[in-house]
Amino acid sequence: MPELRKDPVVGRWVIISTERARRPSDFAGQPVTPAGGPCVFCEGHEAGTPPEILAGRPGGGPPNGPGWTWRVVPNKFPALRIEGELEPAGEGVFDRMNGVGAHEVVIETPEHGASFATLSPDALADVLRAYRERLADLKKDPRFEYVLIFRNHGEAAGASLEHPHSQLIATPIIPVMVAEELAGAARYWELKERCVWCDVVRQEARSRRRVVLEEDGFVALAPFAPRFPFETWVLPARHRAAFEESDPAELRALAALLGEFFRRMGRVLGDPPFNFMLHTSPLRAPALPSFHWHLEIIPKLTRVAGFEWGSGFFINPVPPEDAAEALRAGGG
Amino acid sequence: MPELRKDPVVGRWVIISTERARRPSDFAGQPVTPAGGPCVFCEGHEAGTPPEILAGRPGGGPPNGPGWTWRVVPNKFPALRIEGELEPAGEGVFDRMNGVGAHEVVIETPEHGASFATLSPDALADVLRAYRERLADLKKDPRFEYVLIFRNHGEAAGASLEHPHSQLIATPIIPVMVAEELAGAARYWELKERCVWCDVVRQEARSRRRVVLEEDGFVALAPFAPRFPFETWVLPARHRAAFEESDPAELRALAALLGEFFRRMGRVLGDPPFNFMLHTSPLRAPALPSFHWHLEIIPKLTRVAGFEWGSGFFINPVPPEDAAEALRAGGG
Repeated sequence: MPELRKDPVVGRWVIISTERARRPSDFAGQPVTPAGGPCVFCEGHEAGTPPEILAGRPGGGPPNGPGWTWRVVPNKFPALRIEGELEPAGEGVFDRMNGVGAHEVVIETPEHGASFATLSPDALADVLRAYRERLADLKKDPRFEYVLIFRNHGEAAGASLEHPHSQLIATPIIPVMVAEELAGAARYWELKERCVWCDVVRQEARSRRRVVLEEDGFVALAPFAPRFPFETWVLPARHRAAFEESDPAELRALAALLGEFFRRMGRVLGDPPFNFMLHTSPLRAPALPSFHWHLEIIPKLTRVAGFEWGSGFFINPVPPEDAAEALRAGGG
Repeated sequence: MPELRKDPVVGRWVIISTERARRPSDFAGQPVTPAGGPCVFCEGHEAGTPPEILAGRPGGGPPNGPGWTWRVVPNKFPALRIEGELEPAGEGVFDRMNGVGAHEVVIETPEHGASFATLSPDALADVLRAYRERLADLKKDPRFEYVLIFRNHGEAAGASLEHPHSQLIATPIIPVMVAEELAGAARYWELKERCVWCDVVRQEARSRRRVVLEEDGFVALAPFAPRFPFETWVLPARHRAAFEESDPAELRALAALLGEFFRRMGRVLGDPPFNFMLHTSPLRAPALPSFHWHLEIIPKLTRVAGFEWGSGFFINPVPPEDAAEALRAGGG
C-alpha cells in the first residue's frame, strides 16, 4: 500500500509509492527506460492494460477489444490505490496516512504516432470530454478532494510511454499548489471582489503583449511571471471555476485552440518535451467566484537546478513577451 | 538588467534573466551544452573568470594567478546583477522589481576531476569556510535579505561546467521555500516552544531507522517525507540557526561527515547527478530559536513530471528507511 507522508515543517505531502518500489541498485547509472515489445496502448493490445473504465467506440462493440477511438484505464502501476480508507496516523512529530486515491490513464487515440498537434479537433474534443466525465464520476467518491489531470510528453518531461496519453490522479487532500492558488485568489477576492484570473485576462487583452492565441471564448497567454521559457496558460475568457461544467461547445472551442497552440509550439520549438496540468476547482467547491480553471503548459527546455529547488525562485531566460511574440508568429 | 517578477496569484517570484537571453530557435532540439575548450575554472586559466572576490593561497602570491586551493569569483553570466537599486514597480495587477543581487561561484579545488567524495577533509573544510565568509560579507549589503548557497553536480542536475564548484545567489527577497520553512517552524514554536528540527533530530536519534551518519555534532538523516529517492538532510545535532556562526571545529566535523556521505552515496548510487542547497536563517534574523540550518541533498534519479509540477506532491519510489539503510550499509 502506498503511503502519504507529511513534512513536519512545511506541510508538504509526498507519496511513498511501494507499488513502484525499486532497489537502490536500480538507480545506479542511467534512469530506467521501458523495455521493448508491443505498445500496450495500441489497438489490439487491450489485454495489456487493466480493464477499461470508459471508452469511445463510435461503431459500438464490447469493452476491452478493438474499435475504440479513446480509452480510460486504471494505471497499471498506480501512485495511489483505490482500495481502503485514509486512516491518518502519527509517529511522534510526523504524520502519515494510507495512500488512497485513483490513478487513471486516458489513452487519447489508437494512433501511436499522433499528438495534440495532429489529432483532429473532434478527437481532441473527445479527450477533453473524457477528462470531464472522469472528473464528474470521481467527484462521487467522498474520499477524494481533488483530481489533477496532467500530461507528460517526452522522456525529459517524465513520460515513460510514447503512445499519446494523459493521466489523472485523484487525491484525498487538495494539492498544495492548488491550495496556494485558492488562498491567493481568495485574498485577491477579499480585496477587490473580483477573480484575479478574470482581471489578468482583461489586462492582457488590452496590452496584447503576452496574448498567444484567442479562440471563441478561450485564450492562451504567456504568464507575466513564467517559471519556464514558453510557459503558456490556457483559460476560458469568462469566469469558469470548474472544468467539468464545460459544455460541448466550449470543449470544441478549447480543442481547436489547443490543437493550434501545439502546432505552433512544434513549429517554433520542434516538438519539445512538455507537461501540462489542469487546475480546476476542488471537487467539494466547484462554484467558487474567486477561482478560474486554467491549463498550465510547461515546455521542458531548461534544467531545474539547486537554486530553484532551494529557493522556489525560477530563472527564466526568455521574457514572456518574446515567447508570446514567437508563438504568435509561428502561425505557419 | 534582469528583472524580478511576481505571480499575482501565488506570489511566486521569477527572475527574467536577460543576461542569459536566448532566441527561441536556441531551444529547438536538444538542450545547449557548453562549448569545448580549456576549463576556465582550472589553474592557469584565472583570466577566464571575472576577478576573484576571495581565495585560499597557502603559499601566498597575487590574486587572479595560480597557486590557489579555492577561489570565489562573480558568476560570468549572473542571474541577478550587483549594481542598482530595487525600484519596485507595478503594471496593473502585476509586480516587478530590478533584478538586483549577487551571483558568485565557489571554485572548490584546482583539481578538475575532484569531488566532495575525493577532496581531503581540510580542502572540504576550506570550501565550507568560503561559504561562511561570503555569507558574513554579503550580510553587510543592506539590499540583500537572503543568500542561498547551492551546488549542481551532473548535467541532469543542471550543472553546465564539470569542474567542482558551488554557487551562491544573494536575493533582495527571502525565497519562498525558506519563507515557508520559517513560517512552519514559527507555528511549531508557538505550539511547543521547541525547534521542530531539534525535535526531529531527537526523535530520529531514538528510532535510528532514518539516520544515515553521525559525526561529532552533525547528523545526516533521510527525511520522513522525502521528495526524492535518497534525499538526505545534514544538520547540526544541537540548535544552530545561522550557518555563518559555525566555528572552525564545527566546519571540520561537517566536512568529515560530508566527505563520508558523498563517498557512500557514490558507492551505493554510482556518482549520481545531485543538487544540494543550504537553508540557513535570513541575513536579518540570524538568531532565531525556531529555525535550524540544514543542508538538503537531492540526488536526481527520477524525473519530475506533470503531477509534481501541478500538485506539489512528489512521488518517491524509495522509502527513506530503505535509503538510509542502503547508505549506512555503504560504509565500504
